[in-house]
Amino acid sequence: MLGRPEARPPGFFMAPFRPHRLTRLRSALRQNRAGAMLVSHLPNVFYLSGFTGENALLLVGRRRVTLFTDPRFTTQARQECTGIGIEIVRGPLAPAVGESLRHAPPAGDVLIEEERLSVAQYSALRRAARRCCSWRATHGLVEGMREVKDQGEIAGMREAARVGCRVMRHAIECLRPGMTELEVAAEIEFEMRKLGATGPSFETIVASGPRSALPHGRPTSKRLKKKELVVLDLGVILRGYCSDLTRTVHLGRASKEVRRWYQAVLQAQLAARGAVRAGIPAGDVDEAARSVLRREGLERFFIHSTGHGLGIEVHERPSVARNQTGKLRAGSVVTIEPGVYVPGRGGIRIEDDVLVKEAGSETLTGMPRELLEL
Amino acid sequence: MLGRPEARPPGFFMAPFRPHRLTRLRSALRQNRAGAMLVSHLPNVFYLSGFTGENALLLVGRRRVTLFTDPRFTTQARQECTGIGIEIVRGPLAPAVGESLRHAPPAGDVLIEEERLSVAQYSALRRAARRCCSWRATHGLVEGMREVKDQGEIAGMREAARVGCRVMRHAIECLRPGMTELEVAAEIEFEMRKLGATGPSFETIVASGPRSALPHGRPTSKRLKKKELVVLDLGVILRGYCSDLTRTVHLGRASKEVRRWYQAVLQAQLAARGAVRAGIPAGDVDEAARSVLRREGLERFFIHSTGHGLGIEVHERPSVARNQTGKLRAGSVVTIEPGVYVPGRGGIRIEDDVLVKEAGSETLTGMPRELLEL
Repeated sequence: MLGRPEARPPGFFMAPFRPHRLTRLRSALRQNRAGAMLVSHLPNVFYLSGFTGENALLLVGRRRVTLFTDPRFTTQARQECTGIGIEIVRGPLAPAVGESLRHAPPAGDVLIEEERLSVAQYSALRRAARRCCSWRATHGLVEGMREVKDQGEIAGMREAARVGCRVMRHAIECLRPGMTELEVAAEIEFEMRKLGATGPSFETIVASGPRSALPHGRPTSKRLKKKELVVLDLGVILRGYCSDLTRTVHLGRASKEVRRWYQAVLQAQLAARGAVRAGIPAGDVDEAARSVLRREGLERFFIHSTGHGLGIEVHERPSVARNQTGKLRAGSVVTIEPGVYVPGRGGIRIEDDVLVKEAGSETLTGMPRELLEL
Repeated sequence: MLGRPEARPPGFFMAPFRPHRLTRLRSALRQNRAGAMLVSHLPNVFYLSGFTGENALLLVGRRRVTLFTDPRFTTQARQECTGIGIEIVRGPLAPAVGESLRHAPPAGDVLIEEERLSVAQYSALRRAARRCCSWRATHGLVEGMREVKDQGEIAGMREAARVGCRVMRHAIECLRPGMTELEVAAEIEFEMRKLGATGPSFETIVASGPRSALPHGRPTSKRLKKKELVVLDLGVILRGYCSDLTRTVHLGRASKEVRRWYQAVLQAQLAARGAVRAGIPAGDVDEAARSVLRREGLERFFIHSTGHGLGIEVHERPSVARNQTGKLRAGSVVTIEPGVYVPGRGGIRIEDDVLVKEAGSETLTGMPRELLEL
């Protein structure tokens, strides 16, 4: 391969929505009495500008917005970013941003994303800007905006969820005792690609038999056997947006005990999905799932939280976890994925992607959840 | 998926080599009159400790080495990192590192990788360490060590190259007019997975017809046609090490002109590979390829550099580009990949991975380079 790869997905062209996002960010700048913001976290750059290249800084002023990138991305930046300035820079980007600030100092602090800016970039910025501007750290300003999806994003996530479901159906059809977990993962990722996904949104999980009790089971060369549980956890990236979906199947007829576990997880998942609506504290959704498992005596086997936000990144705000007092907002997309993991025996997880609405929710990954005995 | 993914490849267990690497880093610390180094770039952490989790800081003191990571990676850290201390931290890692420095201040500056440490991490470190230590920025200290591979790494890269070649052979066998570029890419990545790779080392390039003139052609839904060039550029990650391989094939009988281009690129590639040996300036290897294309009147169509270093990352030191005066060192692995791109017509690139040796070189990706007319 030449130069460094352009690793991010092709732009999801949502030109009609981007100006609104920039307008919202600008009013946040005014509220914070800031003159400008330097956006360095690439998913945030993509959200605001549409740019999908892997090297960029976005300077959002009260009037002007400029994308700084390098010559490899000249054509791509022109195609993806409409209505904003583009500055092509040879060499490191930070000094060029600093100089542009020196020539036109903003009327107020420049906000930086301090978790997403390196010490070296920050030094170079300050050196190049000389004493022409002052700096202030921010945390999650754009991430907070991204928590509520706009219509363009919801359409994109619906599509990513739909493709995720098609891949899951294909995976379930393929499953045979004797296949290795790695083969199943390869089939899954092959199908994603054929359906137009850029790739998996995380490392595909295929975990069978006792390995299904590992919530993060990386696929291995272990072969699937009769009388085993198989957890399939997969997601696609489609035009910049992620899906994330889990189903658990049983090879052959399940024992009474496995059925009981499965029904408990399914009831917990239904309860949590049923609880989702705008205004509910995220911790209450977690508790809705947890209390079902508690009643069934399985709470100690539920060793993670109920879900997480989903969008441009596969993990974003909000977190659907114990004691989270933050309220869900209409337009967020969260996963709902309770599970039960019995060490040495096996695990079960059922996961869907859910859009939060004013009066309830909409499950984007609409496919059956009943126990499949293959 | 639960929590954040453990996205990096499974550890390549090279325990016998890691202590040597740490010893070399320690002697570099002494030479630099530094008391310790905080390694924050994950490929460097992997190189020194074997840890493949996605959240870690490695503190290398003159005596003690400690890996800081979070509870998700407890088991993994114990399996992968032998002979070094492991500290499991709930919450952000930097404050824990700072505190440990406060309790045992090193006898000299603490080096930081300033390109790979965020402003937020650096602030947290300094706050937690109080005034107990002084800091100094470094650039590419570990990257410089990684430029020369040890025996364990060379074995790993040989294997990654071998798997890359098998995937390429499979891709060439699959190629048929009527397939889309995306289908070819899906086939390629499917085969990688089946052969045990963690995944592609970069986004697989399949570019056909006039699109082959784009050096970075992302696969599209364009169908392959008779009388077209097809550039296939692929690499695998196998146990933490990358390969990178390009072949260009022609569907049907090639025209005289295409053959002339192909022969020129092949001769340029042979010349550059022939020039590789320890002690030669990297720019001379670039010039060896470039001068062949110049003689053929094709230099203006060679729009990138001849190659780059390869290892844990798909792009690392050294760069094999024009005017690079740095000398190649025995034990480096570089790509040699001249190409010719005629806008609107098509492109040809031939790429191999080459191990630099004292008296010459060894091509790790040994597979035919003659023009294939399929």
